[in-house]
Amino acid sequence: MAGMRLQIIGCHSATPRLLARPSAQVLEIGNSPVLIDCGEGTQMELRRLRLKFTRIEHIFISHLHGDHFFGLPGLISTFRLLGRERPLHIYGPKGIKEAITLLLKLGESWINYPLHFHELEQGTSDTLLEAKGFTVKTFPLKHRVPTQGFLFRELPGLRKLKPEVAESHGISRAYYLKIKQGADAIAADGRTIPNAVLTEPPAATGSYAYCSDTAFDPELPGHIRGVHTLYHEATFLHTEAALAAKTGHSTALEAGKIARAAEVNRLILGHFSSRYNSLDSFRKEAQQEFLNTELAADGKVFDWAEL
Amino acid sequence: MAGMRLQIIGCHSATPRLLARPSAQVLEIGNSPVLIDCGEGTQMELRRLRLKFTRIEHIFISHLHGDHFFGLPGLISTFRLLGRERPLHIYGPKGIKEAITLLLKLGESWINYPLHFHELEQGTSDTLLEAKGFTVKTFPLKHRVPTQGFLFRELPGLRKLKPEVAESHGISRAYYLKIKQGADAIAADGRTIPNAVLTEPPAATGSYAYCSDTAFDPELPGHIRGVHTLYHEATFLHTEAALAAKTGHSTALEAGKIARAAEVNRLILGHFSSRYNSLDSFRKEAQQEFLNTELAADGKVFDWAEL
Repeated sequence: MAGMRLQIIGCHSATPRLLARPSAQVLEIGNSPVLIDCGEGTQMELRRLRLKFTRIEHIFISHLHGDHFFGLPGLISTFRLLGRERPLHIYGPKGIKEAITLLLKLGESWINYPLHFHELEQGTSDTLLEAKGFTVKTFPLKHRVPTQGFLFRELPGLRKLKPEVAESHGISRAYYLKIKQGADAIAADGRTIPNAVLTEPPAATGSYAYCSDTAFDPELPGHIRGVHTLYHEATFLHTEAALAAKTGHSTALEAGKIARAAEVNRLILGHFSSRYNSLDSFRKEAQQEFLNTELAADGKVFDWAEL
Repeated sequence: MAGMRLQIIGCHSATPRLLARPSAQVLEIGNSPVLIDCGEGTQMELRRLRLKFTRIEHIFISHLHGDHFFGLPGLISTFRLLGRERPLHIYGPKGIKEAITLLLKLGESWINYPLHFHELEQGTSDTLLEAKGFTVKTFPLKHRVPTQGFLFRELPGLRKLKPEVAESHGISRAYYLKIKQGADAIAADGRTIPNAVLTEPPAATGSYAYCSDTAFDPELPGHIRGVHTLYHEATFLHTEAALAAKTGHSTALEAGKIARAAEVNRLILGHFSSRYNSLDSFRKEAQQEFLNTELAADGKVFDWAEL
């Protein structure tokens, strides 16, 4: 069972409303929470949902539209007021450092913890982070301003030792860690016991791709092929395909096409326009292309337990 | 009866929490709502409180600390998304234009309505606005960064005509507007009838001074003397007077002293620190100096009906 867990903080486009919060998500991965996008009011929602947000060390901002970004200055300030000491890493488009630095300077609110900016070149496809237990890559999205997606992968853990088999061969416990790491072992009688006899594969690992906002992009599946769970924006239904293309957004049908082409396991739709009162049509439309489709909702939790 | 009405959107210091929102207020004056400070999440609260916030044409920002200012970029963007056409005027410390302009530029979110910035010199005492029915002045506060207070005054309306008196003198209705504006009138028999005989004084006018944040400042009463209602910050109780002085804030006792020295009619305390669970001590402490003290609370309405 993979240890990943995703909680949607907000999944609605544009203007924040009371029951339609702008984009933000907390992904628990490798026993660490990371924040993905940070619309206005995110810090209040993190408190309301009782998430231990001071543990967040990495924040990924897809682009600099307000509904993905205007909660970040306040969160950074709040970390200071809470006496934060651990470093904070912020990944986002060029300009994010200038914006945050100017706001802190105007308020003479100097940060007393290490704050590191990692500015992303538009259109790049790079590894951003190799942390304990997980990696993060970025890939390009097609929107009106420079926008990047993020791909999170758990790293495999240790192989699972079969202690009864090791004992039956009289193998010393001193070798158990090496065996879990994949080594063969020497039995009491001098024979070499292959690792595959002594262990089972490690627990399955989870993976997650975040794509918001983007126009329909046939090149996108190449960046995320085989990812377990894909969050793909679906601002509009396909009756508004022309408007979606014009504004750099996707329809639910297009999100389904991407999920199918990328051979993912699960699709989560989000970034819904405020023009729709009911969202059930979004799922039905995407399911014409990709059956295992779910709808994001503010506060909703997704896990990877079925792996 | 004066036509002013104040609704507190948030009145708590520093970190926004679910039931302790950062500073923002809507003042209805001269049939116009104006916004005073704009902490993060203000636009969501304006919606929740069902305030017709698109009518706001003037926004006054006291200083550039996040808890008074980080909701402004989102509100400006939302006005654009709602198709605003009427102009918006923003009054605030130097740097506010650069900050907002940078955020709009990074998001390529050009405003399609007239947006006017009025940057305030630190320490000035000027008239900012003479609008239909009201005036706004600014005055200096003493905080860690450049901070200005704001003084709002309703302008007197027309004098109230006594129609039965005018008719008894045979005065033509054609003169009624001039009489309401203060002119004497000629009776049917040629005599001059003094205005004071024909009219009563206009309705009383309201006034309001907003002081947040500030250290105790003995010069402050000189700027606001005789104002009807004073909102004065009281971040701490007087047991923390040293901390208040060090951080550029006031205690409830000090706020009471200012209200008494300025000979105001009513004191509203706000900007409470999160360290206090109960706020009743704030009122009691201020009442040692000034009896007519009330506590601000998120969502609470104050009116000037008793004038």
